[in-house]
Amino acid sequence: MTTIKFNSIGIIHSPFKDLEGMPIQPIGARGIKGKINLNGEYKSGLKDLEGFSHIILIYHLHLSKDHKLEVKPFLDTQKRGVFATRAPKRPNPIGMSVVRLNKIESSTIFISNVDIVDGTPLLDIKPYIPHFDTLEDDKIKIGWFEDKYHEAVDKKSDRRFIDD
Amino acid sequence: MTTIKFNSIGIIHSPFKDLEGMPIQPIGARGIKGKINLNGEYKSGLKDLEGFSHIILIYHLHLSKDHKLEVKPFLDTQKRGVFATRAPKRPNPIGMSVVRLNKIESSTIFISNVDIVDGTPLLDIKPYIPHFDTLEDDKIKIGWFEDKYHEAVDKKSDRRFIDD
Repeated sequence: MTTIKFNSIGIIHSPFKDLEGMPIQPIGARGIKGKINLNGEYKSGLKDLEGFSHIILIYHLHLSKDHKLEVKPFLDTQKRGVFATRAPKRPNPIGMSVVRLNKIESSTIFISNVDIVDGTPLLDIKPYIPHFDTLEDDKIKIGWFEDKYHEAVDKKSDRRFIDD
Repeated sequence: MTTIKFNSIGIIHSPFKDLEGMPIQPIGARGIKGKINLNGEYKSGLKDLEGFSHIILIYHLHLSKDHKLEVKPFLDTQKRGVFATRAPKRPNPIGMSVVRLNKIESSTIFISNVDIVDGTPLLDIKPYIPHFDTLEDDKIKIGWFEDKYHEAVDKKSDRRFIDD
């Protein structure tokens, strides 16, 4: 097993001070605003980013202190393999969200559609490019999510993955 | 700055022994097969995953030894801020690809549309759920990629991000 070290490149801020009541996906967080305070040393890496309307944030799910290989997801009543879910209690607690980019001022990035808890350490920003990240040509199967995904719009988080 | 430690959960295998000539995105790697050897201890986390046709792989771009804040991407002739590109020389060298899931046998996952170099350490697997990960309702702007993204189908990698 190889240990890999990353450094937080900034902090994500949002109205969600706690996991309780937080949207579980960006589609449930439309219009919710947040911002990223990028460490000043990385500022020149933001050049050209404002041309994109959406960005992919990769971040550390820092409240997840351990992991479980089978979890009961927010959208289900039975346990699923953790890699078949988006639950935060993963072997490597890495989160990913596509958010709207509103504007950049110096090293502060203003975003919306934020489903991320306040104070989350940011690891990477990538431009969202539908031609790379969506799959229009393929027949897509989504397993146990099939009759549940629409619930993600209204479903809120609770503390199950940190208290449990 | 916070240091975050992750452990590789397995190794991604592909026909690409070197970055030279590798597709730069999964859309340029249609049909190219690979497999993931997941560490046996995580096997039960794969339960229910076979119901999904596509999975998101998050991995360590282990050949990127340092980073640059401005890079000349494969698809462009001028330097761009690294966060406005998918180039591997990022402050945290984290890669992300949506690949097709063909089958799972014990802790081996057979995949296709693989644009990843052989031997890459895997960090996370998430189910691909178009309702979460694509944005049909929004007007999407893709900055400097606008007149370039179609070239990603044929464009191949070179060693610029490891030799440079």
